[in-house]
Amino acid sequence: MKIGIAGLGLIGGSLAYALRSAHEVRGYDVGRETREAARAAGLSVVDTLEALLPADAVIVATPMSAVLPALAALAPRAGSAVLLDVASVRGPVDTFARSQAGGARLVGMHPMTGRSTQGFASADPAMLIGRAFLVVPTATSDAPAMASAGEVARAAGGVVTVCSAVEHDRIVALVSALPLALAAALAIAVSDGAIDLATFAGPGYRDTTRLALTAPDLAEPILLANSGNVVAAIARLRTVLDDLERAVASRDAARLRELLERAAQARAVLG
Amino acid sequence: MKIGIAGLGLIGGSLAYALRSAHEVRGYDVGRETREAARAAGLSVVDTLEALLPADAVIVATPMSAVLPALAALAPRAGSAVLLDVASVRGPVDTFARSQAGGARLVGMHPMTGRSTQGFASADPAMLIGRAFLVVPTATSDAPAMASAGEVARAAGGVVTVCSAVEHDRIVALVSALPLALAAALAIAVSDGAIDLATFAGPGYRDTTRLALTAPDLAEPILLANSGNVVAAIARLRTVLDDLERAVASRDAARLRELLERAAQARAVLG
Repeated sequence: MKIGIAGLGLIGGSLAYALRSAHEVRGYDVGRETREAARAAGLSVVDTLEALLPADAVIVATPMSAVLPALAALAPRAGSAVLLDVASVRGPVDTFARSQAGGARLVGMHPMTGRSTQGFASADPAMLIGRAFLVVPTATSDAPAMASAGEVARAAGGVVTVCSAVEHDRIVALVSALPLALAAALAIAVSDGAIDLATFAGPGYRDTTRLALTAPDLAEPILLANSGNVVAAIARLRTVLDDLERAVASRDAARLRELLERAAQARAVLG
Repeated sequence: MKIGIAGLGLIGGSLAYALRSAHEVRGYDVGRETREAARAAGLSVVDTLEALLPADAVIVATPMSAVLPALAALAPRAGSAVLLDVASVRGPVDTFARSQAGGARLVGMHPMTGRSTQGFASADPAMLIGRAFLVVPTATSDAPAMASAGEVARAAGGVVTVCSAVEHDRIVALVSALPLALAAALAIAVSDGAIDLATFAGPGYRDTTRLALTAPDLAEPILLANSGNVVAAIARLRTVLDDLERAVASRDAARLRELLERAAQARAVLG
């Protein structure tokens, strides 16, 4: 396939590296320095978004705030190209696709992966291997477009799962946004405690707060563009935390044990 | 020094491996299989707790629930031996030490490290290197006993910090117990969401919930033996989480951004 990639940051750069052995890949980034770094790394790079077309598929891998503008710029001239986007919240793309009467075919392709560093310099195709790629239809998807999304995702090393936009956004609120919100809240709450973290923090604190390092530019839309589901997820968490706190405050060892065992079992499914 | 180690689990076993090159180390564990495994690994092992004496120092590295019984058994015959214990909550040992009129010298030596696996098979001296060892005086500590604790901690690869029992328990409530409580609450809240985690969970969810894998036997006393500080820590967290939730629910991007930036800065001190 002839594949364009718009946005050569952590995800787009990793996809470019992953796909170029089996496909004809061209990349584009708004940043001139990023384009130069990608060229220096041996990738084929064009100097405008539109020059990614014609193609069989164009992957929009920009930050969330630039996804809709990029799709809007590409759609009128997409022709037979399938437009894939990696947006981690589907609601806004879903709404955009409904407004596209008879236009380009849009399919979401969201790899469930991440790092706490950003940008092309951090791109690494290994971070895609074996990860779930959530392939999400829109109002403009057809079966061949869905198949193309699956093919691209598998070629990048992903494990393809198809789900609706509604299901996607409910799931990522729980497995991505809620951990992010908790990590951020924990980092703030502990720093307010005036503790010398460099001295006292062990690996447990480090792991639990790692997502707090997510760049605010990336973290904000994960929470705001999916705010309804995120608020529901926080409410769900608060119910469990209240229960756990009651067990601690009342020194109810049996109830606490029950909760800790449920938590350990729930987490153990991931090994 | 002649050093006894009571309890050859993850921490005790790691200490035994770390200390044996520079010191004369003998270990003991209530579990016969653990004693045999430790002997097979080349450690010097005795068959009763009391046989760890005479010594210059005995480290009690049992689970929390066995620390006070072990100290009570060792104290009357400790002689000049300093009794160190790795208990991760100091309140109960502090109270015990006050009851020891003119008896053995007790000093806390708590390494800020951990893994989600337990037991001698997981012991590894690398997990102690460069970690903070919190050296905590009790009512029975004197200056030479404190110096011995520091010497043992440094010999094991630790970075020694001295703090009071009160300060210790406030700090660990924030950097150990609160992350543990949140990881457990998150694992339960998400599993209640009926999501196929093996498919959907990425590295962010994995890291944020890793502490939920802590064995309930170890997790329970971290929360219950320090319940006052833990409840205060949860209250502190809830205030921040409420603030963050309000920003998400009202789509207040400026306020959310402010919180995310504070969180990223707070976490960045650890790199």
